[in-house]
Amino acid sequence: MRIVALAGGVGGAKLAHGLQQVLPPGDLTVIVNTGDDLELHGLLVMPDHDTVLYTLAGLADPVQGWGLAGETYAATAMLERYGQPTWFRLGDGDLATHVVRTARLRAGERLTPVCLGLQAALGLAGRVLPMSDDTVRTRVRTDDGWLDFQDYFVRLHQAPEVREVRFDGAVAASTSPEVLGAIGAAEGIVIAPSNPIVSIEPILAVPGIREALHRVRQQGVPVVAVSPIVGGRALKGPADRMLRSLGSEASALGVARRYVGLADGFVIDEADRDLGPSISALGLRVRVTDTVMVDDAARARLARTTLDLARGR
Amino acid sequence: MRIVALAGGVGGAKLAHGLQQVLPPGDLTVIVNTGDDLELHGLLVMPDHDTVLYTLAGLADPVQGWGLAGETYAATAMLERYGQPTWFRLGDGDLATHVVRTARLRAGERLTPVCLGLQAALGLAGRVLPMSDDTVRTRVRTDDGWLDFQDYFVRLHQAPEVREVRFDGAVAASTSPEVLGAIGAAEGIVIAPSNPIVSIEPILAVPGIREALHRVRQQGVPVVAVSPIVGGRALKGPADRMLRSLGSEASALGVARRYVGLADGFVIDEADRDLGPSISALGLRVRVTDTVMVDDAARARLARTTLDLARGR
Repeated sequence: MRIVALAGGVGGAKLAHGLQQVLPPGDLTVIVNTGDDLELHGLLVMPDHDTVLYTLAGLADPVQGWGLAGETYAATAMLERYGQPTWFRLGDGDLATHVVRTARLRAGERLTPVCLGLQAALGLAGRVLPMSDDTVRTRVRTDDGWLDFQDYFVRLHQAPEVREVRFDGAVAASTSPEVLGAIGAAEGIVIAPSNPIVSIEPILAVPGIREALHRVRQQGVPVVAVSPIVGGRALKGPADRMLRSLGSEASALGVARRYVGLADGFVIDEADRDLGPSISALGLRVRVTDTVMVDDAARARLARTTLDLARGR
Repeated sequence: MRIVALAGGVGGAKLAHGLQQVLPPGDLTVIVNTGDDLELHGLLVMPDHDTVLYTLAGLADPVQGWGLAGETYAATAMLERYGQPTWFRLGDGDLATHVVRTARLRAGERLTPVCLGLQAALGLAGRVLPMSDDTVRTRVRTDDGWLDFQDYFVRLHQAPEVREVRFDGAVAASTSPEVLGAIGAAEGIVIAPSNPIVSIEPILAVPGIREALHRVRQQGVPVVAVSPIVGGRALKGPADRMLRSLGSEASALGVARRYVGLADGFVIDEADRDLGPSISALGLRVRVTDTVMVDDAARARLARTTLDLARGR
């Protein structure tokens, strides 16, 4: 079953890893948010892509969920000596990813083939597609004004309240042939348990992607989402606070409302079983299960449940 | 005493470190060979500059003489996973140097200020000036044709015989105002015990540098060289074999002959005492001493002896 998953960072990477475990090799395509990307020390850093890349390659740090296992920080120590900002800490192995990617981009290659090349080198069977080859940058408005996403997310530890979100460059961005091709060929679409506002919505903001999803859905391809909110809280990151400060309910129901018209199935956690009827009332088929992916087996279980919902089982 | 030293890599760095120990802070300017530089993974790598930089900053690996002490290689392991060539191994800390330098160059800065910025950040009192802001690349002809210098030096471990040497880009290269200013203000010029053919001659091949050295020498500024050959052998690298294959004698005398008309003093090792008269006959004032810099004290001793010769003491 050819599956396209829309994903951000850690939560998306975990479900993608579950899907990789239960799908035949090559049947998984992840479309990944690039709104979080940034340029550091002249290098293109792609936090969400690389989290999914390392996770699918079995190289991710198992504790923090991002970065490489056993990572060292000698380059960062030297960057500090040179007086460079190091609030976004780059591990030594991770740095190689950014160096190789940036060199290929500067040589004139398109972002998507560059990313596919890195993935193939690390042995991935599936594909992780940047949502666009063009630059889209998520920015958030706080009481101190507009901030670059990583400024808010990493440097300020998500302390400020987010009043508004925008995706700079999205209007002018193009979808890649790979993204359109993957959606067009999909037999099921999965919206991973990523932050709906700053992980999933940037993907949908690239002109053509939302339309392509609607098109395949009208042709009968199921679209199912997994809630990133469990018991009113985000398992990781600021999704709960962000939903609240932007006027949504910080709950699985609040997320479900955002996916009305986009998805037709919604997987929620046992803790949110009582929200099931309200979510069903939105027109979404609901599946209740344990959505907390504590280990590889839990990732595979959630992936199976999600695919079952997609298949109407 | 304002000293300008011409230097290549390890041998030049050691004497520069000796000079740094015995001169007042700020009195040392090293003009460093950039013919060995190369682009790797889209980054400008400057082996000779960085060897001098790390040595003067007290950060160099004390055993191999180049690279950073305590260096790790996680980035290289990842580069290997990505199928990148890693015959030129970049340490993790060292990689940060290339990343920072390349970012500043791509932002439009000139090479010399970029290098001076790195040096200041590492606390150097003196200056290490690239011989030119323009790209000059040393190439060597072997029986297999022309090779990039590091291809010959690192990848092929200097195994092929060198039949010819050329400095691509030298004719069109310009001297920097910093280099011309340093030579013009010098009270003594020291030619470090570096490979005369591929470390010192590329510097002299930049139009204007040889002329500037002649000019100050005619004004009475002493120019003294230190032999990189001891007892017929290079302490490090292929200088001895290269001298032979290019038709010179692989001895302190062979080196001295190359510096006639450029230097007026020559420091040789005790092991070469018997060559003293032949070198004197070339018109060079000769000083015999222990030139093998086994530790910091030996570096300082050789620096003092070299400066004494320059001062006519």
